[in-house]
Amino acid sequence: MRATAALALGAALAASSALAAPSPKYQYMKNRFVSQPLANFKADKAPHWNTSSYNLTQVPEAPTVKVPHRNIWAGLTNAEAAYVVAFLHNQTELNLTAAADAGAWDNLISTVDLLAPNKTDALTFMAGGPEPPRYAYATIMFNTVEEPYLEDYIIGPLGSPNETTYGPYSFTTTKGTSRVRNFDADEDRTYEFFSATAATCDDIFEDLIGAPSGEYDLWGIDPLWHEEGRVISWVGAWGRPTSVFDGQTLLPQGIYMKFDITGRDPAGWKFLGWLHNAVYYPTTDDFRTAYSKGLLEKTTRNDGMNSTWIGTDRRGPELPYDTRPPPMQIAPGGQRFAIDEENSYVEWMDFSFYWSFRRDTGIRLWDIKYKGKKIMHELGLDEALAHYAGNDPVQSGTSYLDTYYGFGPYAFELISGYDCPSYAKFVNSTFHSNEISTTHRRSICFYEHDAGFPMQRHTNGQYAAARKNTVFTVKSVSTVGNYDYSFLYSFHLDGSLSVEVMASGYIQSAYYAANGEYGYHIKDGLSGSMHDHVLNWKMDMDVLGTSNTVGFHTVSPATVKYDWSPVPRNTMHLVRSELENENNATLHWAENGKTMVLIYNKDEKNKFGEERAWRIMPHVGGAGMYSTIQNSSNAGPAMNFAKAPLFVTKHKDSEAHSAHPNSAYDPFNPIIDFSKYLDGEDLVQEDLVLWFNLGMHHVPHTGDLGNTVHQTAHAGIIVSPHNYLEEDPSSQSSQMVRLVYNTSTGDSFVEEVLQFGGQTATGLYNLTAAKPDYYAYEGDVNTRKFPYDPTDPYDETAAIV
Amino acid sequence: MRATAALALGAALAASSALAAPSPKYQYMKNRFVSQPLANFKADKAPHWNTSSYNLTQVPEAPTVKVPHRNIWAGLTNAEAAYVVAFLHNQTELNLTAAADAGAWDNLISTVDLLAPNKTDALTFMAGGPEPPRYAYATIMFNTVEEPYLEDYIIGPLGSPNETTYGPYSFTTTKGTSRVRNFDADEDRTYEFFSATAATCDDIFEDLIGAPSGEYDLWGIDPLWHEEGRVISWVGAWGRPTSVFDGQTLLPQGIYMKFDITGRDPAGWKFLGWLHNAVYYPTTDDFRTAYSKGLLEKTTRNDGMNSTWIGTDRRGPELPYDTRPPPMQIAPGGQRFAIDEENSYVEWMDFSFYWSFRRDTGIRLWDIKYKGKKIMHELGLDEALAHYAGNDPVQSGTSYLDTYYGFGPYAFELISGYDCPSYAKFVNSTFHSNEISTTHRRSICFYEHDAGFPMQRHTNGQYAAARKNTVFTVKSVSTVGNYDYSFLYSFHLDGSLSVEVMASGYIQSAYYAANGEYGYHIKDGLSGSMHDHVLNWKMDMDVLGTSNTVGFHTVSPATVKYDWSPVPRNTMHLVRSELENENNATLHWAENGKTMVLIYNKDEKNKFGEERAWRIMPHVGGAGMYSTIQNSSNAGPAMNFAKAPLFVTKHKDSEAHSAHPNSAYDPFNPIIDFSKYLDGEDLVQEDLVLWFNLGMHHVPHTGDLGNTVHQTAHAGIIVSPHNYLEEDPSSQSSQMVRLVYNTSTGDSFVEEVLQFGGQTATGLYNLTAAKPDYYAYEGDVNTRKFPYDPTDPYDETAAIV
Repeated sequence: MRATAALALGAALAASSALAAPSPKYQYMKNRFVSQPLANFKADKAPHWNTSSYNLTQVPEAPTVKVPHRNIWAGLTNAEAAYVVAFLHNQTELNLTAAADAGAWDNLISTVDLLAPNKTDALTFMAGGPEPPRYAYATIMFNTVEEPYLEDYIIGPLGSPNETTYGPYSFTTTKGTSRVRNFDADEDRTYEFFSATAATCDDIFEDLIGAPSGEYDLWGIDPLWHEEGRVISWVGAWGRPTSVFDGQTLLPQGIYMKFDITGRDPAGWKFLGWLHNAVYYPTTDDFRTAYSKGLLEKTTRNDGMNSTWIGTDRRGPELPYDTRPPPMQIAPGGQRFAIDEENSYVEWMDFSFYWSFRRDTGIRLWDIKYKGKKIMHELGLDEALAHYAGNDPVQSGTSYLDTYYGFGPYAFELISGYDCPSYAKFVNSTFHSNEISTTHRRSICFYEHDAGFPMQRHTNGQYAAARKNTVFTVKSVSTVGNYDYSFLYSFHLDGSLSVEVMASGYIQSAYYAANGEYGYHIKDGLSGSMHDHVLNWKMDMDVLGTSNTVGFHTVSPATVKYDWSPVPRNTMHLVRSELENENNATLHWAENGKTMVLIYNKDEKNKFGEERAWRIMPHVGGAGMYSTIQNSSNAGPAMNFAKAPLFVTKHKDSEAHSAHPNSAYDPFNPIIDFSKYLDGEDLVQEDLVLWFNLGMHHVPHTGDLGNTVHQTAHAGIIVSPHNYLEEDPSSQSSQMVRLVYNTSTGDSFVEEVLQFGGQTATGLYNLTAAKPDYYAYEGDVNTRKFPYDPTDPYDETAAIV
Repeated sequence: MRATAALALGAALAASSALAAPSPKYQYMKNRFVSQPLANFKADKAPHWNTSSYNLTQVPEAPTVKVPHRNIWAGLTNAEAAYVVAFLHNQTELNLTAAADAGAWDNLISTVDLLAPNKTDALTFMAGGPEPPRYAYATIMFNTVEEPYLEDYIIGPLGSPNETTYGPYSFTTTKGTSRVRNFDADEDRTYEFFSATAATCDDIFEDLIGAPSGEYDLWGIDPLWHEEGRVISWVGAWGRPTSVFDGQTLLPQGIYMKFDITGRDPAGWKFLGWLHNAVYYPTTDDFRTAYSKGLLEKTTRNDGMNSTWIGTDRRGPELPYDTRPPPMQIAPGGQRFAIDEENSYVEWMDFSFYWSFRRDTGIRLWDIKYKGKKIMHELGLDEALAHYAGNDPVQSGTSYLDTYYGFGPYAFELISGYDCPSYAKFVNSTFHSNEISTTHRRSICFYEHDAGFPMQRHTNGQYAAARKNTVFTVKSVSTVGNYDYSFLYSFHLDGSLSVEVMASGYIQSAYYAANGEYGYHIKDGLSGSMHDHVLNWKMDMDVLGTSNTVGFHTVSPATVKYDWSPVPRNTMHLVRSELENENNATLHWAENGKTMVLIYNKDEKNKFGEERAWRIMPHVGGAGMYSTIQNSSNAGPAMNFAKAPLFVTKHKDSEAHSAHPNSAYDPFNPIIDFSKYLDGEDLVQEDLVLWFNLGMHHVPHTGDLGNTVHQTAHAGIIVSPHNYLEEDPSSQSSQMVRLVYNTSTGDSFVEEVLQFGGQTATGLYNLTAAKPDYYAYEGDVNTRKFPYDPTDPYDETAAIV
């Protein structure tokens, strides 16, 4: 029975009942039997927890904190980056040309970034040992040769000019080298070849899609293909938006061209055919003949060029009352967390962590502690796959591996009041590419917000109690071309940590011609090109040390004969098992959530004998987490990280990331093949790394026009303490209320309101001051690094985006 | 390639590049090739969308609206309920006794509620036909017989006293009758029997658990068992909390007793044995002998009686800065939706619906329209199962079917500022039980809130744009004994509708003795008793009419040979199929979200030939949706609604609900056996009803002490337009911003801020006025109905809870 249901009602019904027995099968007034009222216990009074109101005129300064130790993961300073560039230019064997002056046949430095210290060295340092020396890596494009390639170089230690050395860097690769062929080093000239070929059929372009080829952009498959040793590119014609809105990916025109662009000598390049309306014409003659005979079925031109439908401005009927200001979050108590901005360190409630920022993958968290104990050494994105399919070669051949483009460069200034509350703490991010250091101001935000529902609540006949659910979030947004990815790391009062990704921006669409099998017809000439998003995170957990084990606790049906029952009973039980080694470490979330995935140190049980664990569980989403395609013709083994929702590996310093941004140059020979990390090592009481995927199967429909909305393009995972503490830690929060009634006096009204020291804001809150100044939106700042002038840290021009 | 990535950066990099070609495989500064800047298009100026600020001193009145037609689903008025009670008391053959005077051998009326009109009649009415007459039903407990039973009676039409008739009601049952045996009609006397038996071993109680049996409450399995024709009850001893906190379910004491309580004559009842520490003693002699010999292994007493650990008040170290007021939502623009409170009707943006409130299941939505067209006829909870397991008979034998207790009676006043924002519109709910009408004031809330992330956002080289994500929610909370269930129905600007449930309150725990297979050891003598929550909703969708079909669109891997490729390609495609009939209509959410579940009218395609569909998708949760146990020894066929995540049936007026609250009296002979709805009927272009489950496998851990927190005890489903409109409807919202820069002048700073008519609140917001007055918390109001005095609608006492 629901004993407490009866108890809860006891007080209210006491007047109409004289019966004494607590009532099994008590129903609210379904029958007349009610339980005895609770004794009129004195409510717990808490005079030291008197409510006090909060004077808005005295909002304190934002708290600050001094970092406990140097942030050894902080990205290169501008001066360090400049030093690395200068140092490399001094190495004559590299034959470098300044990036600003380099042509297609010059060697040049592309990315420069910190080489994060090995975990081994970081742990030694945090245990009081020596600070690991700082090393940088630089990706160098070697273009002076017939077979151009890229390779990473390690440079360091920094700060010790006399000791600085350099050399090719291969330690964190599975290929044994970071060298990768660039089959597309001459893209300016290949583009000329594409354009010239297209122009030979300008009349057909004009007839079919209303304008000569020169009025379209030509681009296509990514990565390039290899057919019988030849390098193949397919390109399609895309319209150019005529408004400010950059919705070119909504303007495919349905004409595709195939090229052999093998080698660096244009004389060796070949045009291999046209595709239109799902019919392939191996030569221009074939194409023209078909056209002349009227065999090119006229399809619908995507005439977005002269319309505004690709925009995202307000349109259609105004919604009722919608011009009035909607609800908003405010922070009347000011900032309730402490940041050491210079050292990229933050403390909120009982959590603390460092952050860093990388060109390839953006924001990254380090040394995440909860209640003074480390729970994660490292948490950050490693790669993002967007794998398309279609009946045309451009869609079929598109499998973006987005770190190739980089999440750092596209982490633009956030839109205050929309991306983050206007009261958020905004900080800058910096990356170093092409010998330029770029700072995106206000591109990372930190804020608390109310979750919209309480953390806890309960009502009975004598009290009603509830606790606020205030969440602390770190957010950045990267607009990688058409898509905007929002990344959120959130910390919760119950000890949970969640990771979410949301997508907005423009879909990449397909031309609608005989492709109903690959997406929906969403506009006259447009198909919502189906694709899978799979984003891979590295989560290096250290639960009470680095000796960790992954456990599975499964809720399973069972038929059991108990001594106390004459017949067997159909019931369920909990089945516990553990992950043994990497051969079994490709994991899928169990159907119906029946298996809990835990991580713990087997030697650290709580006083009741249960492992002090953290549970990992997907909690937002539902549109898919891993790749449909397991053997992609596009991405090959470069996307091995994407083929299941969760992997567990034994930590090795050499297995630092699940992917390398330059694998996209040659995905069938990836620099990092994630599957090689799963090589049978024992996983019981080892230093474990979890690699999880978030994502969605995205089959765009009409609701993706103009932009995809975050509503369902949203996936998240949560990591929660599970028998880790002795009780729910949110009970430490002062932000709760208990209304006490019906106790000592028997009166029916509230006698006391307990607020536990949590202050309530009163007075007048200045909304004018809280309003963002959108004219202050600024964007990025470039610093040219070579030659570097430390007295002029920024360019004179502060360019936006 | 990511063409727009290149475009976005074009403007910024124009200065450092003279190359013209759009760049396939463009990387941000990985090489020097950058695309041409966008032409300096003139930004779309929109002078009629000037920003205006909002004068807080002139917040308009809350909008009101007049209901389009009478709310035919509104619950009985107090006068109607009183009429029904009086009418039944006039029927001498029923031999009723006033509830206030009734004893265990008297017939009495328990629940009175509206019998919702058949959908058939409702549709006729809404199409302009006659208003369906109002009928009530009453559940009558027939206790004057040796085999007591309950049965529902229909009474009506109401409002026409000369025409009112009554009779047993069986139309919406699968059993053919609503009559159900009550095997527990004498619970006051059985409790005396339990107590007296326990008292025979008071010395053992005292020795084992520190107090004689009279200081414990005795209650146990739910529903009762039947063994070889006998009615069996198992009870356990539970401590009585000594504080205001009603955490009795945290105080099991590990002593269990088995009784045969068959029949109404106590002389026929038998005591059948003791259970302690997993050992069964068939007689008291056996138990006492074992005790005397020292064979009763001493286990740990759950000594919560004199401690405060079962409370939820603040404790432990104060968290940093946590006494300062946290962020909160405010509504500076006032209420932006319109309610007809008298007629239980609301309009928000392009949504409208009616609501009703029932004793059994609480709030229910009707005639949900979007942009003027119906999308759902009915949406509401039908039943909630909480199925436990354990090595003791009380946990093993617990399978609450919570409508038995009712969600209506426990929908207490909400805690303003916690359950709902203080600016929410709160309304009352009323139910009629035991000849009393009870009104819970402010027990349903309606509010908008900011979702915490934008609906849409995009940035490029010339603009940054984002759109607010304001959500409209209807919420109520029912505290059914130990657990608090929050129910949320939310409406979104992209047209989505979501349903969520969250759980908080006290777990029901088990005594910790040899039961590690059934839960975690969470406190000295306590095990977190594992259980499944499964909550079933009826969702009667009508998409562009009542001829509807469920479609499955599956993202599937495929190897395809295309004309344009020399080799087959490993890719994926979209496979479409449809649900044919009820034999296949027990549905599971596909692994990895690979199948989209849609509902549409096949005759209503959009202009591109795609079905105008709605998609149904779980989007919050991850801890399980349906019951682990498929053949429960406790709940039998009464829980057939819980055995899969989703069912589809053909609508019939007679199949109104998936469960009946009185099936819990005799679950192996349920009044409604949901599986009988799945009887092979055709489902293509029929009037379809979807029945979905939300839930969780709950294996409580230490973090569930004192209360379960909402953080992961949270599940939700979302229903979204899918090719239903021609584009994303959130583009209609005025609450968006576009920052324009870098356009006509080439300047790098923001030139214009477009706000599309959306007003921004400025000025001083009065937080003092927004602060809830917790001393006004009031609770419920009872009106005794028999005899009924319409001049005194409320009791003089307004009792809380």
